[in-house]
Amino acid sequence: MEVGALLTSAGINIALCAVLFSLYSILRKQPSNRIVYFGRKLAPVRSKFDDHFFFERFVPSPSWLVKAWETSEDEILAIGGLDAVVFQRLLIFSMRAFSIASIVCVFLVLPVNYYGKDMEHKKIPSESLEVFSIENVNENSRWLGSHCLALYIMSTAACGLLYCEYKSITNMRLAHITQSPPNPSHFTVLVRSVPWSPGESYSDSVKKFFTDYYGSDYLSHKMVYDCSVLHKILRDAEKVCHLIKTVPMDGLDTRPSCLCAGSTSFEVLSNESGSANSSVSFTDLSLASRDNECPSAFVFFKTRYAAVVATRMLQTPNPMLWVTEMAPERQDVLWESLSIPFRQIWLRKIATILASTVFMFIFLVPVTFVQGLTQLDKLSRMFPFFKGMLKKGLINHLVTGYLPSVVLMLFLYTVPPMMMFFSSVEGPVSRSRRKRSACVKILYFTIWNVFFVNVLSGSVISQLSVFTSVRDVPTELAKAIPSQATFFMTYVLTSGWASLACELMQLFPLLCNLINKFILRDSEDSSYWLMSFPYHTEVPRVLLFGVIGFTCAVMAPLILPFLLVYFAMAYLVYRNQILNVYLKKYDSGGQYWPIVHNTTIFSLVLTQIITLGVFGLKESPVASAFTIPLIISTLLFHEYCRQRFLPAFRKTAAQVLIEMDRRNEQAGTLEEIHQRLPSEYCQIPLGSHRICDSTLLQDIVHDHVQVKSEAESSECGAVCNYKIEESTIS
Amino acid sequence: MEVGALLTSAGINIALCAVLFSLYSILRKQPSNRIVYFGRKLAPVRSKFDDHFFFERFVPSPSWLVKAWETSEDEILAIGGLDAVVFQRLLIFSMRAFSIASIVCVFLVLPVNYYGKDMEHKKIPSESLEVFSIENVNENSRWLGSHCLALYIMSTAACGLLYCEYKSITNMRLAHITQSPPNPSHFTVLVRSVPWSPGESYSDSVKKFFTDYYGSDYLSHKMVYDCSVLHKILRDAEKVCHLIKTVPMDGLDTRPSCLCAGSTSFEVLSNESGSANSSVSFTDLSLASRDNECPSAFVFFKTRYAAVVATRMLQTPNPMLWVTEMAPERQDVLWESLSIPFRQIWLRKIATILASTVFMFIFLVPVTFVQGLTQLDKLSRMFPFFKGMLKKGLINHLVTGYLPSVVLMLFLYTVPPMMMFFSSVEGPVSRSRRKRSACVKILYFTIWNVFFVNVLSGSVISQLSVFTSVRDVPTELAKAIPSQATFFMTYVLTSGWASLACELMQLFPLLCNLINKFILRDSEDSSYWLMSFPYHTEVPRVLLFGVIGFTCAVMAPLILPFLLVYFAMAYLVYRNQILNVYLKKYDSGGQYWPIVHNTTIFSLVLTQIITLGVFGLKESPVASAFTIPLIISTLLFHEYCRQRFLPAFRKTAAQVLIEMDRRNEQAGTLEEIHQRLPSEYCQIPLGSHRICDSTLLQDIVHDHVQVKSEAESSECGAVCNYKIEESTIS
Repeated sequence: MEVGALLTSAGINIALCAVLFSLYSILRKQPSNRIVYFGRKLAPVRSKFDDHFFFERFVPSPSWLVKAWETSEDEILAIGGLDAVVFQRLLIFSMRAFSIASIVCVFLVLPVNYYGKDMEHKKIPSESLEVFSIENVNENSRWLGSHCLALYIMSTAACGLLYCEYKSITNMRLAHITQSPPNPSHFTVLVRSVPWSPGESYSDSVKKFFTDYYGSDYLSHKMVYDCSVLHKILRDAEKVCHLIKTVPMDGLDTRPSCLCAGSTSFEVLSNESGSANSSVSFTDLSLASRDNECPSAFVFFKTRYAAVVATRMLQTPNPMLWVTEMAPERQDVLWESLSIPFRQIWLRKIATILASTVFMFIFLVPVTFVQGLTQLDKLSRMFPFFKGMLKKGLINHLVTGYLPSVVLMLFLYTVPPMMMFFSSVEGPVSRSRRKRSACVKILYFTIWNVFFVNVLSGSVISQLSVFTSVRDVPTELAKAIPSQATFFMTYVLTSGWASLACELMQLFPLLCNLINKFILRDSEDSSYWLMSFPYHTEVPRVLLFGVIGFTCAVMAPLILPFLLVYFAMAYLVYRNQILNVYLKKYDSGGQYWPIVHNTTIFSLVLTQIITLGVFGLKESPVASAFTIPLIISTLLFHEYCRQRFLPAFRKTAAQVLIEMDRRNEQAGTLEEIHQRLPSEYCQIPLGSHRICDSTLLQDIVHDHVQVKSEAESSECGAVCNYKIEESTIS
Repeated sequence: MEVGALLTSAGINIALCAVLFSLYSILRKQPSNRIVYFGRKLAPVRSKFDDHFFFERFVPSPSWLVKAWETSEDEILAIGGLDAVVFQRLLIFSMRAFSIASIVCVFLVLPVNYYGKDMEHKKIPSESLEVFSIENVNENSRWLGSHCLALYIMSTAACGLLYCEYKSITNMRLAHITQSPPNPSHFTVLVRSVPWSPGESYSDSVKKFFTDYYGSDYLSHKMVYDCSVLHKILRDAEKVCHLIKTVPMDGLDTRPSCLCAGSTSFEVLSNESGSANSSVSFTDLSLASRDNECPSAFVFFKTRYAAVVATRMLQTPNPMLWVTEMAPERQDVLWESLSIPFRQIWLRKIATILASTVFMFIFLVPVTFVQGLTQLDKLSRMFPFFKGMLKKGLINHLVTGYLPSVVLMLFLYTVPPMMMFFSSVEGPVSRSRRKRSACVKILYFTIWNVFFVNVLSGSVISQLSVFTSVRDVPTELAKAIPSQATFFMTYVLTSGWASLACELMQLFPLLCNLINKFILRDSEDSSYWLMSFPYHTEVPRVLLFGVIGFTCAVMAPLILPFLLVYFAMAYLVYRNQILNVYLKKYDSGGQYWPIVHNTTIFSLVLTQIITLGVFGLKESPVASAFTIPLIISTLLFHEYCRQRFLPAFRKTAAQVLIEMDRRNEQAGTLEEIHQRLPSEYCQIPLGSHRICDSTLLQDIVHDHVQVKSEAESSECGAVCNYKIEESTIS
């Protein structure tokens, strides 16, 4: 590839981005798209907006960029939570690290590469890109020292920045814990695997155990019930509700007046028949009963410290009974997982690790198939009846040029749901943990399938054989990276920049909204696509560009400016999305940063190992010798950070907890918190002894649907007054 | 090798063992050897025994075997502690597992191997040993199913036994904790990395921190002092003391009357001059002062539960400050390590892991050198001046036949001290932990250098290249194991049986004792070789035979009877040694069992992988297919055990602790324990303000020496009454 071609490609992509960004700035002003582009702001309001026509609606404007730029970190923290700030920090770190790398590599390494061989240089636009990579440097050249120096500067800068970020995020996490209003989850412990004792309900066992061993600190508890039936009914009710709303029926109110719930079917009844049906037996709905108890419970403690102590201890000599952990926040709880027997969890974890690894490698099959598509002769041999068709020019071009990437993209779109499914099967107790687990899986998947498979491209078999000989890996990578740098440059341009434009445009929700509004003629804003920020897809994406950037930086520094542009755009785009589109439903409290840190260290060490391999190939023993201490010190730095910062992400310090408790105690708010606690964590907003009242059921179902559409943010709040069977002491 | 030759070798070794065992039964009756063979029993007594001459002293007798056999597990527990019981259980487990394996393999696999090929069999004594191994089975033979079946039975039996043992040892550990008399270490927390605050001593900081955050449970604390100087002096004093005792001098008392301690030298003074020298300045000995405080302390709590809670919590947001862990038992504390700055520990750990790995691989160099010695022509090429000498028959035989094994043995003897040194550098806080860490290192070393290097014998380079291609490892092992089985049989006979005889004879202490008594003419029993049980060398040794046994069982079942004999003998010999020779100085509470469990699972999986490789070589896809589920289930079993039992070895359950505390409280003994606590964990039995009193110093040094010779079992007890600077509150 020549420089000119690269610049053309960059130009096309810049133009495309500019068009899409302008289009976005117009589309966002259309009232019909408000729900797509301002979902977060609409969620609590959901009123009708004025639909006035004015000229400015159709003029592109950069105001959103300015707004995104001006927003302070505190605002982001307030709107998107600590996770959003961590994501911002990831982008800022990337910008800083790659700015330093760009300066060093463009001014130090690039000239060395360019003048590496005694050759006559063409004009720059028609120069091959390989002239700018390390391939152009002679073997055993003493200029290789400059690459080594650049590697040192880059690694040191990256480690220094990583250290500062880790430190500041640790402090932010601490501030987030101490300065937020009293959080019920800090007082609550999730107990699983409560042992069965004959003649005693699980609830009694829990009460007995905690009164016995944590008597002075135990407040009350709330059992978890197995209510898959009720959840199904509620889900069905919601659907029917929606159906009734969307299909206007004569002679009936547009709102469902009464829903008579059988086990699976619903009938729409008029208001009058409601009272007649009030005698319907709902006994099968009395779910909060002893028979439906799961061996899990939320246990409330009087102080935060006591709750944490209970989670840190092994309760009984059998570590598989009375398993305690800190409860997730109320809206973060994944109720389905709580009814999974605890004894299955370890098996499920192993199974999903295996399944996702297998999936990761099986994914090579469509990739190879797609690579096969580009070779037409192979294809026509496989499907002889295609032969005639394939001879025609257009179809030929379509199949070879367009189909492969479409197929690959379709396959790639299956990855996040698949990994999310695997993470669900694992049985995590909270949504945030499920998302984080999916994030890690997608990260491995992406780095393997986009980075390594592309670098070592070839047939599946040859790739596997590469990895059987461990010693050759650095050499193989060293051979492959400089030649693959061109591919990665175009990857950054197309996949990177384009993905940002797509993210901004929200193509899928936009399409759904258009269909909904103009084909289905639904006048109300549907709220099905009010999502929380998809960290599990976006964090791996940004980290992948980090891996590509670091590994290519010294070898082929030309990639760096494009990457910098990507990170700068990503910074603005994601800020805009956090401000306008995504809802903060739950927050993991910055738990994504250790993932970011580990991946960055991995990229650095990978870069250093590859550079070591390149120095080996270039027969420069001095440069190789200087690289080895760098690898060792990077690993030591990683270990130090693991010791210094990671524990604060896993546990909260006793000092902090005790001081928070004291502050509450001195302010006299502890009592108030205690009174609020028992109404938290209610799983079913239904009372078994009042369930037969059908008007109540109607209210409940209606409330529930409304609450759900309010993004589950206050699932229990409104209806928790019907609390039954609360096992409260005190 | 033929069966006859093997039997001859076995016969010789049996005879040798019989002779050595008889010799032992005579030697142990000699009063002069009592200190060697009955060190444990003598330690507390140390009185002169009668030296009567009677005939029975020179007649071998099996009474010690009977005694060793009859001792119950409870007695072993009382005498040798839980670690001794765990070691016994390891031997019992090995006997049981290999009994089952023997029955299955000898009656099922051996005939299949023997009649595996259509061939004319010679008489059994002159039959080659390979006829009994799996090498004799035809390729794709349907009889390979019997090997698979044997593998299944063996693995299932081993896993079942492992499960039972793990369960019973967990219970034993629990009983050991709950039923032993109140242990001060249960109430004590070791705090390290106390932060430095200006204008405040470390002791004040500790007091302030624990009063503030653990006010209701904190009792008192005791700082650790950096007293390397004093320790050196005491060590010197001890030596001088010993010298004075052994060299009788006229005009002076045989006991040192007064020791005047300068920094490094000692003078022996008469009793009269003692008082004149009492004005010597000992200011440099005032060690328990503020300047010598280490940032570490032992903190005493009112209840066991409170102490454990303090260790389970992260104290401050910075995880590298106020690091807490349960204190080791008083006599188990390794004071030297406590003055190591905590920030170095992680670096030291990494450094020692690297160093021991390098040592493990560098050890290949002497091994290859020794292998080279057996090839005379190589040697004479290297050292031409040897040529003439080597032509002579005797020297030739000596060099080729004897020297290699001697050199190898000498090299092998350096391993335990070396690994112990590495473990010391790591900075463990207790002797038992140091020993356990050395045990793990020696285990890796042994399995690598004795098992793998022998199996894949050849040059160093070819071995390394074997391991670069990961996929070929099972095949390589499968090729090597059956042919190496003969070597392992002789290894069991020579190294295994002989090592037991050596262990019983205690050759080195015996020699030292003889020199001491008959050459140096020291009439008193020296107590320098009163050792605790060397678990760090014996556990790896027994486990190595387990690895050899499992891997060879299915391939070459002839090894099993020899192994069974080894384990039975080991059972008796080690019981005898625990009863008579070794002192229990400290106890890790059964922490060796997880090591045993993991190694056994490793052996089983290794066996299964090797058998898989063999089935592959024998082209038996059915048997291979059946082996894979076995590998998976073994790994799942391991994971289950890890979840089910391991936590109980790392943490003590809240339930157990609370109930122990309650029992003490009800019995009213808690107060008494509290009063005892502050006098525990005294590092220096010296008071700075009374140190100038030289008679006191004399007493102290004398006491210290005596205490030391009483095996450090009560280092502080006698002299702790001079307690100064005890930071006691309450």
